[in-house]
Amino acid sequence: MTTLTPKPSGAGSSAPTIVSRPSPSGRCFNYSAGPGALPEEVLKQAQKDLWDIFNTGVGILEHSHRRSTFDRVLAEAEADIREVGNIPSDYAVLFMQGGASSQFHTIPMNFLAKDKSDTADYFDTGEWSHKAIREARLFGKINVCGDTSSTGYDHIPKGNEVRYTTGAKYCYFESNSTVYGIQFHQDPSPPAGVELVVDACSDMFWKPVDVRKYALYYAGAQKNLGPAGTVIVIARRDFLEKGHKDLPWLLQYRTFEKEQSRPNTPATFGIYLVGQMVKWIRRQGGLKAMEQLNRAKAGMVYECLDGSSFYKAPARKEDRSFMNILFRCPTAELDRQFCAEAEKRGLDALAGHRSTGGMRASLYNSMPIEGAEALVKFMKEFESRHG
Amino acid sequence: MTTLTPKPSGAGSSAPTIVSRPSPSGRCFNYSAGPGALPEEVLKQAQKDLWDIFNTGVGILEHSHRRSTFDRVLAEAEADIREVGNIPSDYAVLFMQGGASSQFHTIPMNFLAKDKSDTADYFDTGEWSHKAIREARLFGKINVCGDTSSTGYDHIPKGNEVRYTTGAKYCYFESNSTVYGIQFHQDPSPPAGVELVVDACSDMFWKPVDVRKYALYYAGAQKNLGPAGTVIVIARRDFLEKGHKDLPWLLQYRTFEKEQSRPNTPATFGIYLVGQMVKWIRRQGGLKAMEQLNRAKAGMVYECLDGSSFYKAPARKEDRSFMNILFRCPTAELDRQFCAEAEKRGLDALAGHRSTGGMRASLYNSMPIEGAEALVKFMKEFESRHG
Repeated sequence: MTTLTPKPSGAGSSAPTIVSRPSPSGRCFNYSAGPGALPEEVLKQAQKDLWDIFNTGVGILEHSHRRSTFDRVLAEAEADIREVGNIPSDYAVLFMQGGASSQFHTIPMNFLAKDKSDTADYFDTGEWSHKAIREARLFGKINVCGDTSSTGYDHIPKGNEVRYTTGAKYCYFESNSTVYGIQFHQDPSPPAGVELVVDACSDMFWKPVDVRKYALYYAGAQKNLGPAGTVIVIARRDFLEKGHKDLPWLLQYRTFEKEQSRPNTPATFGIYLVGQMVKWIRRQGGLKAMEQLNRAKAGMVYECLDGSSFYKAPARKEDRSFMNILFRCPTAELDRQFCAEAEKRGLDALAGHRSTGGMRASLYNSMPIEGAEALVKFMKEFESRHG
Repeated sequence: MTTLTPKPSGAGSSAPTIVSRPSPSGRCFNYSAGPGALPEEVLKQAQKDLWDIFNTGVGILEHSHRRSTFDRVLAEAEADIREVGNIPSDYAVLFMQGGASSQFHTIPMNFLAKDKSDTADYFDTGEWSHKAIREARLFGKINVCGDTSSTGYDHIPKGNEVRYTTGAKYCYFESNSTVYGIQFHQDPSPPAGVELVVDACSDMFWKPVDVRKYALYYAGAQKNLGPAGTVIVIARRDFLEKGHKDLPWLLQYRTFEKEQSRPNTPATFGIYLVGQMVKWIRRQGGLKAMEQLNRAKAGMVYECLDGSSFYKAPARKEDRSFMNILFRCPTAELDRQFCAEAEKRGLDALAGHRSTGGMRASLYNSMPIEGAEALVKFMKEFESRHG
């Protein structure tokens, strides 16, 4: 039985007391892998709009998804994504629900033949692509065209580690492994005619992207682009049209395209917040500015790791993620101590995924440079005491 | 092509200027059918928690769904629903995504035989049950056991209007039609052994409920219980166990039960807000107090309608909804004028659904008695000018 028992008070009895709050606004720096940090400017705007948006006398949560206020929110969110992401008009920009993992079945259900005779290539480069493979196997023949599970997902498969299928319906990859901290810095190159489908959950819009390379490019918003509960799908319209037509209404992409992301009530607040986030990205200078910021932040932390014999970083250098940085102290006990001390000092959510242990610092678009600086400062100080 | 063009400014050029804001807090009264009004107390708490929840230095949107802060939010939301709704322990309380309409396929996909040989009974009593029937037909034989579409969904089928199927896998009904303003005041009584499955989107927890009568009782939160994007499913655990095991992971109810509503990243803010809403209901005195309030609000509006020869209410008296009240002026032009004048005076979102026209006042749990009073006052005043 799975009934949860709530704790009577506090954020959890094991939570340490926070003794300092390093952000200038009095908040913590939050390195959570997702849901992750949001820009404070965006949070302040959301606080206002929760009460009353556009001077309508009604908050964003409470507006009908069919009336003019939300028409504007939705239209702006789409237009801003198109502008910031340089999305061509033959690509649809859809807001879906169910979490990005719902795409794991929706994609093969739509695009593989009903008699399960089609093949699709999948890269197995981490927790989520592994799960996507499991789901896809319900719908067709899945060729794992590259797989680094045997080395603990410490790198991206390349060269003769990769075996593509000629005539595959599509080739699927997870562009950044949130759990293992590895990232495709070069796209896969399947045989001509094989479409690329990308789970970009943890790195969509971390830098400029040419979506023309992909048939379908999707992400849950809660890492780089907003809150949990909204999935952004950017896909070529003629690819989406190939999906089966005898599927349930809400499992067909064309439904979302035809109904402008609202066949039923969408997650209105999530779409609003993605819109605010993309406006914020534009105010920072767009995706080029994001890339510069993200390279600076990750560069700083990797420089610290590379200069240390105390910390170990498991990912191969050439495949390191700019979003999620994994590292360890010499012992698991020191890892625990690191996380607990960091949390006390307002450096929140640095523990690694339950399947890896160690530490993980997620430095998504919203993380300010000061957050990376504060982390590096603490890493050096911790090393000097325990190294 | 479905690219939306954003309007440069304003909530929509056709939106009238609001000249008064009748709520004591300076907001409008919002009669939207959903997403609908939320209690101002809840919005104020959410504004705080967006910035920093439980003094963690991190906002509710930004906390990982796997850490202690969200553990507490989720556990409290479930426990509070169980307490307020008097839900027995052999029932699961699940938070799902995709909108309530995703249940239209998830239910028959799970519970009807794979070879489509099973029969399920469905009541067709409005827009959403009609769509549910369409989706269910992909998975089995659907017997429409009661259907009031031919009279414009003006009543609930009863007596010899209803033909149940002995041996049906389940009997499905929409307890309240948001679009047509009719409500089941007595549950259907299918043959012994036929389980009841209820779409309670627009009336879950409007009054005390005995969920033991139902195998599966579900609602999107955005009407009576929170924001869009979160679906509350309350279901008998042994019924959920009967679902097929070879479906995609996220289309099986057991996955959500086993993983405590977070097999993947849930819509964390939605669960938080449902939790706040249920705490608010408890502070008001629970579901008995909700019933008293809801009966008082709807009673006031229906009394006004019954005493008027100017307004017409399409729903049959004995099946009138306590949540959504439909009415019309003598002409469509007067309907438009009514809505436009009401909006100027801060009585928002009174236009009926696009398929019915006229007016619709939704008086969900969050609507204060003052909102019903303000509406009646305006109705009488409008009638005195135009009657």
